[in-house]
Amino acid sequence: MTREYKIAVIGGDGIGPEVTAIALESIRRVTSGSGVEFKTTEFDLGARRYLATGETLTDTDLESLKQHDAILLGAIGDPKVPSGVLERQLLLKLRFSFDHYVNLRPTKLYPGVVSPLADPGEVDFVVVREGTEGPYVGNGGAIRVGTPNEVANEVSVNTAFGVERLVRYAFELASNRERKKLTLVHKHNVMVHAGWLWQNTVNRVAEEFPAIKHDYLHIDAATIFMVTNPERFDVIVTDNLFGDIITDLAAAIGGGIGLGASGNINPDGAFPSMFEPVHGSAPDIAGKNIADPTAAILSAALLLQHLNNPVAAARIENAVAADLATRGNKKRSTQEVAESIFALL
Amino acid sequence: MTREYKIAVIGGDGIGPEVTAIALESIRRVTSGSGVEFKTTEFDLGARRYLATGETLTDTDLESLKQHDAILLGAIGDPKVPSGVLERQLLLKLRFSFDHYVNLRPTKLYPGVVSPLADPGEVDFVVVREGTEGPYVGNGGAIRVGTPNEVANEVSVNTAFGVERLVRYAFELASNRERKKLTLVHKHNVMVHAGWLWQNTVNRVAEEFPAIKHDYLHIDAATIFMVTNPERFDVIVTDNLFGDIITDLAAAIGGGIGLGASGNINPDGAFPSMFEPVHGSAPDIAGKNIADPTAAILSAALLLQHLNNPVAAARIENAVAADLATRGNKKRSTQEVAESIFALL
Ligand SMILES: CC(C)[C@H](C(=O)O)[C@@H](O)C(=O)O
Ligand SMILES: CC(C)[C@H](C(=O)O)[C@@H](O)C(=O)O
Repeated sequence: MTREYKIAVIGGDGIGPEVTAIALESIRRVTSGSGVEFKTTEFDLGARRYLATGETLTDTDLESLKQHDAILLGAIGDPKVPSGVLERQLLLKLRFSFDHYVNLRPTKLYPGVVSPLADPGEVDFVVVREGTEGPYVGNGGAIRVGTPNEVANEVSVNTAFGVERLVRYAFELASNRERKKLTLVHKHNVMVHAGWLWQNTVNRVAEEFPAIKHDYLHIDAATIFMVTNPERFDVIVTDNLFGDIITDLAAAIGGGIGLGASGNINPDGAFPSMFEPVHGSAPDIAGKNIADPTAAILSAALLLQHLNNPVAAARIENAVAADLATRGNKKRSTQEVAESIFALL
Repeated sequence: MTREYKIAVIGGDGIGPEVTAIALESIRRVTSGSGVEFKTTEFDLGARRYLATGETLTDTDLESLKQHDAILLGAIGDPKVPSGVLERQLLLKLRFSFDHYVNLRPTKLYPGVVSPLADPGEVDFVVVREGTEGPYVGNGGAIRVGTPNEVANEVSVNTAFGVERLVRYAFELASNRERKKLTLVHKHNVMVHAGWLWQNTVNRVAEEFPAIKHDYLHIDAATIFMVTNPERFDVIVTDNLFGDIITDLAAAIGGGIGLGASGNINPDGAFPSMFEPVHGSAPDIAGKNIADPTAAILSAALLLQHLNNPVAAARIENAVAADLATRGNKKRSTQEVAESIFALL
């Protein structure tokens, strides 16, 4: 009996299509003969379509994407498109439309990988970033634009509903990890309303998880610990903007954004979850067979994990770890990295 | 002829009074016999007064502080006071009441100082952080607090007036530096209204400063460069919240928050500017003669700079640099550090 999954593939722009093709191939190889089959549909979304048609993400696109079990995304973005357009009308629109309230970003410093930190220690934590609220809701505005009297506001919207479901997810995740520790990151000495909604929610949900230790760090202090003592982190739970910032920093200390994988997850299963490398489309190196496909491959592992294929996911992760351990700092082509990882699967 | 300056001294809490006393002593020593005299008035502000009287910063306090040429602040904060009270009713109230729109935070990795980065390179940049707008204005609110239907909003307010005066200050600062480079840090692909007010202002003011190169980084990308290539930064201009975050990270890579000095500056001179170490009150080590007074001493140098005593300021900075160069990692007492720096003045 074959279990079939439908995967929507959005290669996107720049290096997106190259690395996504390899991520897909890793899924195929690791599941072949296992009775699980992945059927893929390519979606032409991103800069090319926008520049040709002015379309970013139509209702029809959303409707077809919704028919899939998960989405694998490469990268979106092109210098020919004004900053913000594809981000908000495509990437963020996907996250919001499919209620991807968990933006899951693990950081692990694999043996053999060089961190910019002199003494990073054991780095192995997960950021659970909120994905559908905060200053990302597009709830700002400006008056007298372009005049000396302009006022431009941005509103961060936070709801008990939105915060609690995320915090509960984070505690559950912490329960399944060894160290059983959760750190809330916010700035509640300044942003008191949102901050205390987060803190009070963490305090309340914590009562349901007596085995989990929890603490709190202001976002500014969190960035200090990220470079002086990243070992202190296990599960970090935080809002959309703080999560955006701290996950880029986390990826950097974990050996670079080229290794960062992420999941935009709707845990309720009402909508397809979406998996994407943290890196961008890097148009300057696109098509040159030099982009590192590792983050895309690790994102494929997160996808497999999400679709209840933990064994296949672990095999990918182990193959990546084995490759990284022997990689050294020799420059390799996209294809060489892919073949090395495939051989280790 | 003696020029007299009136300095308001807020030692504050924890290690604040100890390190401030030493900072003041460094000012006295470096200016003695120079025809410039500093008269100090101590202000009893902080946790002790709040816990005794419920007062944080009264109109009378503000009125007396205003009679001074500058304020030297140690640190504010005590575990017995709920988070946010002293921050907002004292520290931020000072910044807002005295229109400290420039929050100036230099980062320099002095020879001999160990950075958490394996290969930091030459780190020498200044963050010009906005100090009177952004999400710090206290313009948020919440409804149905404590219920499952709570909504908590935080509003970031940005004005052309506020952004332009800061950006102009940053360009002027860049003009007086060797590398003549300015980087705007924001997140204008998501926070479009505020973000483009900032970007358009930078673009416009840049025309008045043709010798200054300028570029832009999203806040998330900026944290990556901070740990992978801090040499790329010269002057960073950014909003209140992004500046809060990036200056803590900057202090960390510059050898630790124990060395970070800052100025809360009203360049127009309508109000006294305020100088303070970036570190907190560290109540756990207070009164033990082990707090490092270096950040407070460097803040005193910024104060001297601001009050037109650049030679005295440079003498302090050079003495600190000389001390750091030979400091090694031997633990020294507050007094030992102070005496070493004084001897080098
Ligand atoms: C491209 C941008 C809108 C996005 C974000 O801010 O969430 C990116 O930085 C990320 O972290 O996935
Ligand atoms: C104490 C706090 C309110 C303050 C801030 O956020 O500005 C501090 O972190 C700082 O950077 O001076």
